[in-house]
Amino acid sequence: MGGYRGKARELLESKSISVGDRVKIRKKGRTYEGLLMPRIELGDPNHLVVKLDSGYNVGVKVEEALEIAKMKGGKAPKMRMPPLKFERDPDKPNITIVGTGGTVASRVDYRTGAVHPAFSAQEIYNAVPELVDMANIKAVTACNVLSENMTPKLWAKVGETVADELNGEASGVVIAHGTDTMGYTAAALSFMLQDLSKPVVLVGSQRSSDRPSSDATLNLIGAVAAAGADMAGVCGVMHGSTEDKYCLIHRGTKMRKCHTSRRDAFQSVNVLPLGMIRNGKLELFQDVKRRSDAEVKVDSKFEEKVALIKTFPNIQSVVVEDLLDRGYRGIVLEGTGLGHVPESLYSGIKRAKKEGVPVVMTSQCIWGRVNMRVYSTGRDLLELDVISGGDMLPETAYVKLMWVLGHTQNFEEVRGLMRKNLAGELTSRTRPDTFMKSFLPEG
Amino acid sequence: MGGYRGKARELLESKSISVGDRVKIRKKGRTYEGLLMPRIELGDPNHLVVKLDSGYNVGVKVEEALEIAKMKGGKAPKMRMPPLKFERDPDKPNITIVGTGGTVASRVDYRTGAVHPAFSAQEIYNAVPELVDMANIKAVTACNVLSENMTPKLWAKVGETVADELNGEASGVVIAHGTDTMGYTAAALSFMLQDLSKPVVLVGSQRSSDRPSSDATLNLIGAVAAAGADMAGVCGVMHGSTEDKYCLIHRGTKMRKCHTSRRDAFQSVNVLPLGMIRNGKLELFQDVKRRSDAEVKVDSKFEEKVALIKTFPNIQSVVVEDLLDRGYRGIVLEGTGLGHVPESLYSGIKRAKKEGVPVVMTSQCIWGRVNMRVYSTGRDLLELDVISGGDMLPETAYVKLMWVLGHTQNFEEVRGLMRKNLAGELTSRTRPDTFMKSFLPEG
Repeated sequence: MGGYRGKARELLESKSISVGDRVKIRKKGRTYEGLLMPRIELGDPNHLVVKLDSGYNVGVKVEEALEIAKMKGGKAPKMRMPPLKFERDPDKPNITIVGTGGTVASRVDYRTGAVHPAFSAQEIYNAVPELVDMANIKAVTACNVLSENMTPKLWAKVGETVADELNGEASGVVIAHGTDTMGYTAAALSFMLQDLSKPVVLVGSQRSSDRPSSDATLNLIGAVAAAGADMAGVCGVMHGSTEDKYCLIHRGTKMRKCHTSRRDAFQSVNVLPLGMIRNGKLELFQDVKRRSDAEVKVDSKFEEKVALIKTFPNIQSVVVEDLLDRGYRGIVLEGTGLGHVPESLYSGIKRAKKEGVPVVMTSQCIWGRVNMRVYSTGRDLLELDVISGGDMLPETAYVKLMWVLGHTQNFEEVRGLMRKNLAGELTSRTRPDTFMKSFLPEG
Repeated sequence: MGGYRGKARELLESKSISVGDRVKIRKKGRTYEGLLMPRIELGDPNHLVVKLDSGYNVGVKVEEALEIAKMKGGKAPKMRMPPLKFERDPDKPNITIVGTGGTVASRVDYRTGAVHPAFSAQEIYNAVPELVDMANIKAVTACNVLSENMTPKLWAKVGETVADELNGEASGVVIAHGTDTMGYTAAALSFMLQDLSKPVVLVGSQRSSDRPSSDATLNLIGAVAAAGADMAGVCGVMHGSTEDKYCLIHRGTKMRKCHTSRRDAFQSVNVLPLGMIRNGKLELFQDVKRRSDAEVKVDSKFEEKVALIKTFPNIQSVVVEDLLDRGYRGIVLEGTGLGHVPESLYSGIKRAKKEGVPVVMTSQCIWGRVNMRVYSTGRDLLELDVISGGDMLPETAYVKLMWVLGHTQNFEEVRGLMRKNLAGELTSRTRPDTFMKSFLPEG
């Protein structure tokens, strides 16, 4: 049944209508005639999608279909459909969905084994026709890679695409992105996009293998809602629970994938989420920067010779020294506890200091904040000019150090910028209710 | 007032008694006479500690002190007290506390800035006199380093000490350990201690800087309770909440420090805790191996040339290749999501395969499990003989690979052992209630 399930499937079967048939559907006030289009599996099963003779696709909710009839003149739809032209509604926000290769709107790869990170406006519409009720959707592609293969050069390309759209007609941008490195890209955009006056929303799908349906629909709806809201800044929108109930909005520099497969894998670390989208309504939990008409600028200079090193018992200084030999210009350590490393790493750190290569300390605890003043070993590291990463995520500190070193390699300037809150990555106080608890909304 | 606070201080002040004074204390059925000893700050303020003329120290609860009087013959106690001799009670379990340099029973370093990882039976008793009511306590020192400086050689030394005690008179062992690398040491002991027939309980103190008091007392009481229980295996006992209410018992291969400073930093990852200690009572949440009289063996062969590498966008193959050049024999990757790495790391992994160096995949998500069969890139890695770490913690996988390579460097044998559950480190199914929620007991 071309991806139709549930009530839609029952309705179609009762009328002996198949995908490719020409149908006439009447709903309150309007009647559509055209070809019944297939749905991909993750779409809302309660929407019938019809390609009108004008080339436009429309979605009709099963409940709203007062009448449906098979007409003459049907034909099997082509595998490749022509680009979608949406009727533009001036009362709706213009939202651009930027594809990066994230597989948010496709499930094919998961089922056949072949990865198809490509996506198109058509696919997104087929998946989630509700989006067209929310916004004038435009889709563009910035790149086409699996998210583990994102690089600083691709971050820059995504940033340029986003800025072009926001400085054009878009009121907000949604970036469809694989979940694996979504946090890193969100951090990169947070530092790159200057004077960011509108929402830039990363969204993905966990395609949880333990559940038959996908989380893509709710996430995309939430992301488009966030992109149209009165906000400015980079954020991520993903499920807030394992059910299809609500999405959380996470700050781009504070979000982290904390589970390999669950829908609610993304967590705001050390901070509350910015807000949530439930039943199509957006609720903010805190004050956020509001949207404006300022022109967005892209500052995408990254120093690529930066490494993130997680420390472990018995780690040796050669790990740092080999990177120095290879011309690395910055190192982020993921130390233990409040920011400690084995003494066996000290000579490597000393050499980095000698060569003017900044070393930034974060914690493999993930939650909490680095404090190197508590124990004498931490103070030893401070004397070696190791820079405290405060409550930054290690992943965010890595991206930030690349970006900072792209602008200055003067040690004091680097230290000053690493300690300064540039994009919400550093906070001065941690709320006690932001540790190890999935955020649960009231009601 | 020598560390006395609250009611104890009030009582002493009302009688003009100071530390070093000779006192007579009467409680129900017994009277003690001796020198009033100082308390260190983290001890229970309701215990008065008196050094008897026999050399024994006794603790008397303020509420139980029916009468207290200052006597003649007091003197300032020496700074260094003689070794404590406890009266052995055959009805109580014999518990050995093994010191490693963890600062569980001392707060001095934190306040003065000097680190004093040394500890003694005396210090522990001064800190937590309740322990003597629970068990016949013996204290030995295995090593004296900050936990970030633990190494495989020191793990072996701790293991030997533990086995000596368990094969002697100890019914259980408590290991006082710094929290930073407690999870790594717990994993190491889990693999090393063969035929482990009694409880081996790691305990530490977070000395949360946001709270005036320490978590050491409750943790030590919980650890001694667990060490005396009808269990066998390596576990960790730490606070289950930010209040002094209960401790959780975590399996040694599944525990992780997830916060830099909170008392409840330790979490069981992907599994429920084994149990908890609340109000002095131990409750198990699941079946555990029971204690027996089997002789404990130590198998402490570790291959030290193993590295744990967290991957990140743009990580380069040289990171792996430099380690191979330096003779590393095994690599644990902390990939993204279900177990992915950038393609820029492939040539390094290929070379590792060619040289017979096993590469094990874990996930930087921390929660969930590696599954390299979902995406084609994961299958590429499986073809490169990357070994799935299942739901193992990256830290545990690192320790396990060192231990496995200490016994065989045959690739197929290594793969077989890494995939086999040896000490509770691998589970086949994950309960949905083990993600991102501090365990809360009922009631």
